[in-house]
Amino acid sequence: MSGSNKPSSGQKGGLEPPGPGENPHTDLSRVYSKDLLPTAGGESLTCKFFQELVNILMDYIFKSNERSSKILDFHHPHQLKEGLEGFSLDLPDHPEPLEQILVDCRDTLKYGVKTGHPRFFNQLSSGLDLVGLAGQWLTSTANTNMFTYEVSPVFLLMEEVLLKKMQSIVGWCEEEGDGIFCPGGAVSNLYSLLVARYDFYPEVKTKGMCALPRLALFTSEHVSSRLPIHHAAPLPLGWVLCCFRGKMISRELDSSIVEAKAKGLVPFYVNATAGTTVYGAFDPLTAIADVCDRHKLWLHVDAAWGGGLLMSRRHQGKLQGIERASSVTWNPHKLMGAPLQCSAILIKKRGLLQECNQLCAEYLFQSDKHYDISYDTGDKTIQCGRHVDVFKLWLMWKAKGSEGFGSQVNKCLENAEYLFKQLQRRADFKLVFESKPEHSNVCFWYLPPSLRGLPPGPDTNRRLHEVAPQIKAKMMEEGTTLIGYQPLGSNVNFFRCVFSNPATQHEDVDFLLEEIARLGSNL
Amino acid sequence: MSGSNKPSSGQKGGLEPPGPGENPHTDLSRVYSKDLLPTAGGESLTCKFFQELVNILMDYIFKSNERSSKILDFHHPHQLKEGLEGFSLDLPDHPEPLEQILVDCRDTLKYGVKTGHPRFFNQLSSGLDLVGLAGQWLTSTANTNMFTYEVSPVFLLMEEVLLKKMQSIVGWCEEEGDGIFCPGGAVSNLYSLLVARYDFYPEVKTKGMCALPRLALFTSEHVSSRLPIHHAAPLPLGWVLCCFRGKMISRELDSSIVEAKAKGLVPFYVNATAGTTVYGAFDPLTAIADVCDRHKLWLHVDAAWGGGLLMSRRHQGKLQGIERASSVTWNPHKLMGAPLQCSAILIKKRGLLQECNQLCAEYLFQSDKHYDISYDTGDKTIQCGRHVDVFKLWLMWKAKGSEGFGSQVNKCLENAEYLFKQLQRRADFKLVFESKPEHSNVCFWYLPPSLRGLPPGPDTNRRLHEVAPQIKAKMMEEGTTLIGYQPLGSNVNFFRCVFSNPATQHEDVDFLLEEIARLGSNL
Repeated sequence: MSGSNKPSSGQKGGLEPPGPGENPHTDLSRVYSKDLLPTAGGESLTCKFFQELVNILMDYIFKSNERSSKILDFHHPHQLKEGLEGFSLDLPDHPEPLEQILVDCRDTLKYGVKTGHPRFFNQLSSGLDLVGLAGQWLTSTANTNMFTYEVSPVFLLMEEVLLKKMQSIVGWCEEEGDGIFCPGGAVSNLYSLLVARYDFYPEVKTKGMCALPRLALFTSEHVSSRLPIHHAAPLPLGWVLCCFRGKMISRELDSSIVEAKAKGLVPFYVNATAGTTVYGAFDPLTAIADVCDRHKLWLHVDAAWGGGLLMSRRHQGKLQGIERASSVTWNPHKLMGAPLQCSAILIKKRGLLQECNQLCAEYLFQSDKHYDISYDTGDKTIQCGRHVDVFKLWLMWKAKGSEGFGSQVNKCLENAEYLFKQLQRRADFKLVFESKPEHSNVCFWYLPPSLRGLPPGPDTNRRLHEVAPQIKAKMMEEGTTLIGYQPLGSNVNFFRCVFSNPATQHEDVDFLLEEIARLGSNL
Repeated sequence: MSGSNKPSSGQKGGLEPPGPGENPHTDLSRVYSKDLLPTAGGESLTCKFFQELVNILMDYIFKSNERSSKILDFHHPHQLKEGLEGFSLDLPDHPEPLEQILVDCRDTLKYGVKTGHPRFFNQLSSGLDLVGLAGQWLTSTANTNMFTYEVSPVFLLMEEVLLKKMQSIVGWCEEEGDGIFCPGGAVSNLYSLLVARYDFYPEVKTKGMCALPRLALFTSEHVSSRLPIHHAAPLPLGWVLCCFRGKMISRELDSSIVEAKAKGLVPFYVNATAGTTVYGAFDPLTAIADVCDRHKLWLHVDAAWGGGLLMSRRHQGKLQGIERASSVTWNPHKLMGAPLQCSAILIKKRGLLQECNQLCAEYLFQSDKHYDISYDTGDKTIQCGRHVDVFKLWLMWKAKGSEGFGSQVNKCLENAEYLFKQLQRRADFKLVFESKPEHSNVCFWYLPPSLRGLPPGPDTNRRLHEVAPQIKAKMMEEGTTLIGYQPLGSNVNFFRCVFSNPATQHEDVDFLLEEIARLGSNL
């Protein structure tokens, strides 16, 4: 990091505000939010306040990119609630001066987690794309709603452009394709369920669910959180398939469908996953599409995590068959690195989304407007207003081009391959799967000295199960790196590393393994 | 506006970057997003890029606060799509230089709508609270997820503090209260339905909806968009009540419930509204709570728009009885002026939200962590990840105090009263309701010269119905002010003015009426 450009409070730099005392009206310890714009004459103070804020945020961004800085400064909930070093979470009756507001901002970042740090491997969403961030700042400043063309002309057109591009990348033809950006993959998947049900049974809208037969849907056993079947219980049954290495087995799907029919259920929907959360597994889409064709079922592909691979010529073949889906969930906030949140539901059959969800509430969406009201998308959604999630992605696309996303995705997968190779050659780690990763997920156990060479069996497994949580606890206290763990099926607690931050280099992967080994050496 | 502080590109000011040519690596026409951080040595360029961005955003904020500036520079969809003055929406294969990215940012704002302008009256959400905006910028920079305490320690604690405060303001006791921030009022209301249904019929989670009797819910006829009963059709029946001046009639509710029972339906849920979208009507909560008690029904209060009045001693009495609700929707992004999005669902009975929605997916929410996992709220939601919507509200509360929100709400309602009085004394306008507004909604017709003095009747109504759309079309072309219109029930198209922007002054209200009269004088 270049010290001369660091906008910290102790130095004069590009974003540095004028020195104290230059303007008595902008001594931040004596002014309040009511003195900012729109209050008359508030321009100077507004400038100064945002200068100081941007200094704090730039400082945070710089620190997030310093490998030597901590990812988190861990405190337990009760510690933070007690008020550390004057950082009080309490909501006051009376206003606090702007200086205190800026201190609160600094403290909030101080006790938070640097998800943009190159050694943060904890979530599918990581990194901090700075053009995406610029897009977010602008979105917040524009502070509007994806409701009608009247209040969001530009953003609604950008949504259309993005959806069309994503649909063509999925492989749909010019006449196909509809969609919408949603608050996350679970909501995108919910849309696919609602639209599929409506497509088969439009009477659900007027007569309710009791007019329908007992529907059945199918998904692999490694998927549940993003498919809100249990949550909203909009459907009477979820059906779970056996899996091998996290992939759905298409002939098992076929026999499950036959079995469900024999029980008097009506199968209508299959959720295939392109990139599962833990293993990064890709279901065999072509084979599943064949089964869906045979039984005339709706094929939804949840590519929330795997969709990003479509941007890479090298890896897009892993999603072969996705063009046959009736709907696709794709979250650019995951592998493509768009800031949170950015998730799209793509629907092949045009018009269905609007037919399914519209209420034709004239008091919200007037049909006698003077412009093309097909852009008043508020009636396509189950929400009324909708947050603007498209601009950052549009801006990133301008800044990188499709090819830039491709290189970024390739880099994440190269990191996964590098980690895989390091794990292969080390005796203190064990891979969950011996074959090369298909996505950027790499799953492994650390074997502390006390467990090495023990015969496999329930007792070893029981001890191994406790290793990852203990290392993770120490890791959070130290704050040098962050990785998640979980059990899955018969596999006891193992680490899952995922790469979605292009800032991560091989040295960070090496660091991760050394750090796990260091923290686990006494176990 | 103080010219000396305006950070436009032509002047040197606080946020002004160093002059061109000072650093050859930061000539923005020759560098790309790949040159920014995390690329080594990218600090200087990152600083410069954000300086330029902030200049653009500050300029926009200043313009939004200038009464003389246009609210919108209207173009039809096809015009914007054709690429005005080089503003192309197309997504490129190859990257564009950062200079072009900044031009795109400026153009995006240029063709958008200034929702923070003091003469923007079009939506329930308007204005631009600058501390709230600072909160949004920080939120975007932190780029994390309301998923687990592990990745959002501070934001999850802030959510708890905010929810507790809002629950105590609603009037619930210390032992009561749970909740969550949601992506908008429709989703908040959906949560209330899911939780209510689960509370009465926990078997819905394991056996599905077909195990339940035919449920009925009740709401007033002026409410539909935020209550997703038709959309998601999670329930077999919506029941609609007659209204007077947009208010639910409690004895009609009672008889509708009795009638539904007689038809073999099982009533379980009543949605009362505190502040309807168009009229700003408050349902009589105490009387409705009595009916709910008598029939043992879940009372939900949708106070998305009206909840803000609870912050004002002068107006909070209009929500008397809300403390008896089992759940409450309250959107601080409306009357309280928090930037979009910020909506809370409050549930009186603690633990229900988690019980209703949890999947206990150990692969997502590990129970063997070393900290208090009750803050891993991901399992309370139907979403998996959740955007951070709390920080901006928390920061605004620090900056204003509860009393600051109270004054702001009072000011919005004073503006409504002022408008009401102006309309009362003018012959060219006609109020939809003759009595003083209860909320900041004021509904009225403009009577063009050709319609004044005509006898009431279908023909006059037909002509009056066309007035508002014609004025609105002209208004959008002129871009000087913006107000919505709609028909409702037997009332033909009328204007609805709402006040939620504290920047609005009496002069802006006067301007609105003069502008409508000017634009409509030839009709």
